[in-house]
Amino acid sequence: MVGRQGIKEHSGELDVTLKEWTGYRDSVQDELKEISNRTPPSLRNILRYHMGWENEKGCARQGKPGKFIRSILHLLSCRAVGGDTAQVLPSAAALELVHNLSLIHDDIQDRSHERHGRPTVWKLWGKSQAINIGDFMFALASLALLKLKDNGVPSEEMIYSFHLLTEACKELCEGQCLDIEFENRVDITEEDYLNMIRKKTAALIAASTSMGAYLGKGGEKAQYFHQFGEALGMAYQIRDDILGIWGIRESTGKSIEGDLRQRKKTLPVVYALRESKNKAKLKRLFSQRHIGVGDIPIVVEILDQSGARDHAQNLIQKYCRRALEQLEASGVERNHQAALKQMANSLAERNY
Amino acid sequence: MVGRQGIKEHSGELDVTLKEWTGYRDSVQDELKEISNRTPPSLRNILRYHMGWENEKGCARQGKPGKFIRSILHLLSCRAVGGDTAQVLPSAAALELVHNLSLIHDDIQDRSHERHGRPTVWKLWGKSQAINIGDFMFALASLALLKLKDNGVPSEEMIYSFHLLTEACKELCEGQCLDIEFENRVDITEEDYLNMIRKKTAALIAASTSMGAYLGKGGEKAQYFHQFGEALGMAYQIRDDILGIWGIRESTGKSIEGDLRQRKKTLPVVYALRESKNKAKLKRLFSQRHIGVGDIPIVVEILDQSGARDHAQNLIQKYCRRALEQLEASGVERNHQAALKQMANSLAERNY
Repeated sequence: MVGRQGIKEHSGELDVTLKEWTGYRDSVQDELKEISNRTPPSLRNILRYHMGWENEKGCARQGKPGKFIRSILHLLSCRAVGGDTAQVLPSAAALELVHNLSLIHDDIQDRSHERHGRPTVWKLWGKSQAINIGDFMFALASLALLKLKDNGVPSEEMIYSFHLLTEACKELCEGQCLDIEFENRVDITEEDYLNMIRKKTAALIAASTSMGAYLGKGGEKAQYFHQFGEALGMAYQIRDDILGIWGIRESTGKSIEGDLRQRKKTLPVVYALRESKNKAKLKRLFSQRHIGVGDIPIVVEILDQSGARDHAQNLIQKYCRRALEQLEASGVERNHQAALKQMANSLAERNY
Repeated sequence: MVGRQGIKEHSGELDVTLKEWTGYRDSVQDELKEISNRTPPSLRNILRYHMGWENEKGCARQGKPGKFIRSILHLLSCRAVGGDTAQVLPSAAALELVHNLSLIHDDIQDRSHERHGRPTVWKLWGKSQAINIGDFMFALASLALLKLKDNGVPSEEMIYSFHLLTEACKELCEGQCLDIEFENRVDITEEDYLNMIRKKTAALIAASTSMGAYLGKGGEKAQYFHQFGEALGMAYQIRDDILGIWGIRESTGKSIEGDLRQRKKTLPVVYALRESKNKAKLKRLFSQRHIGVGDIPIVVEILDQSGARDHAQNLIQKYCRRALEQLEASGVERNHQAALKQMANSLAERNY
């Protein structure tokens, strides 16, 4: 595996980078906590609950924090081109806010009851407040980005970052629209699927890496970082699809089978609907309004037998390889690539 | 009435300003249509349906367009200080996008089945897509604002406009949060209520007028325009409250009684819960989970007898007067105030 080799090559640096990740995550969390301090109590409570810092009563809790993938990639990309990571903490926070508002709205849309092993926001506060906190976080993300100027980022660069983030938000919604539409269809091609996840997932991850390299004054390198982030985002989403079917509830914190019951056209399903010897039966199951609990083991068996999992895993490898090629092509010094490579590999192989 | 006097004074100019309004509205619609052209088909269809340009099948329709209050106030404020209205069409479009996404999300939150006499977006496309199109319009609003630069607005001014709009969005969500929370309470004071509508409604209208004056290079005048817009927004929302109880369905295009059934703490309700001789009964009715259709006439009778309508109308006059005072205080030439005065008065007295 490309991934493992990458990790072994730089194993000396790994312990350092792992510590750095934690440091970056803590810095972004601090930035987000400061933003949440300036919000009214009701909204603050929901925001902090969702971020995992408080329980629903507003009491502090020690829980496993989220992955903070987008913000860490942002900071690592900034650093890789020689930029000042402290300066771009506001944009890192903005990326997390956009991502998390999309999760809160997504949970309503997908009727998901659990996230990170806890009840989702809409389950506790109702759909109305869950819609509202998402909108609120959109505004907070813009305000966070505007703070870049206070950190010394020139106006023109801040404006361009706004462009990048906003275009990514637009694509995210376009992807989400397709994802919802696809629920009612059984004729989704792999091309349709890849286009959908490129928008739904890869666009924001690409914005994270390209904005990081751009704000870090990486100039032309930002293009390569965009490609790196996009390919990594594709691998990330396909891995998410696999975990949504074959993952372990305790690791992902989400109820397994949600994607299937919701008739999501994840890659394994798209593949099996085309390649499985039982595709007619699978099509019938996916043509119901909802897939019942009793039908789930039948669907999983068909997916298992179709080779869909291997196919998905191969595509992850392909996108992961492409991501690392783009990183190489960026011309960034090798020792600056290490942490990003490690992150890419661990995301593609993750079980959480 | 202050309003009518204002209108009579300038009656010679009125026909001109009415034509101008229509012209402004058409220009903003054109700007919005151009934005919608650059969106993917599914989202475009929903957006155009909501704006009233198409039916749900995507066929053009000739319907009464929305009021475009925020964008027209924006353009009129820009012009009043001698600014170039063509230059600020993108920000006018951004204001309408924010307002309309708040309507789409609001209709889900309030379970409203009708808007402008037609089924709401969520009734036709489902809640998931309705949440999503709202998020999408948030991104479109930011992209619209970024277009100011192409129209020759200096970067620093565009950035400051972003501040103003984003702060208004934040307040809008804060107000919306309170509005939802208040549904379950019967102890709302008039102060609570006024604070809630200042955020929910007046903040965006204040941003419309202050951004208009600011981008029109009105300098210090923008502060007065902010106060003007805020006071006008207060009057506007209280008028909305009255129409929500005593309005005529054909004029408003909304199902009357929605506010009452949803137990909204509108001004007449807040007043009657404190002042009515039947306040104990009213409190009991509002303490139910939902107010049944059969109870609505009882509620309306209690409101009628309490003098709540006169009280609300008096407050409208008060805010309308305050708005016009701020306009005077801005030092803008009298003949430039005419259209804004007329708009303020007509909004405070509207039946639609």
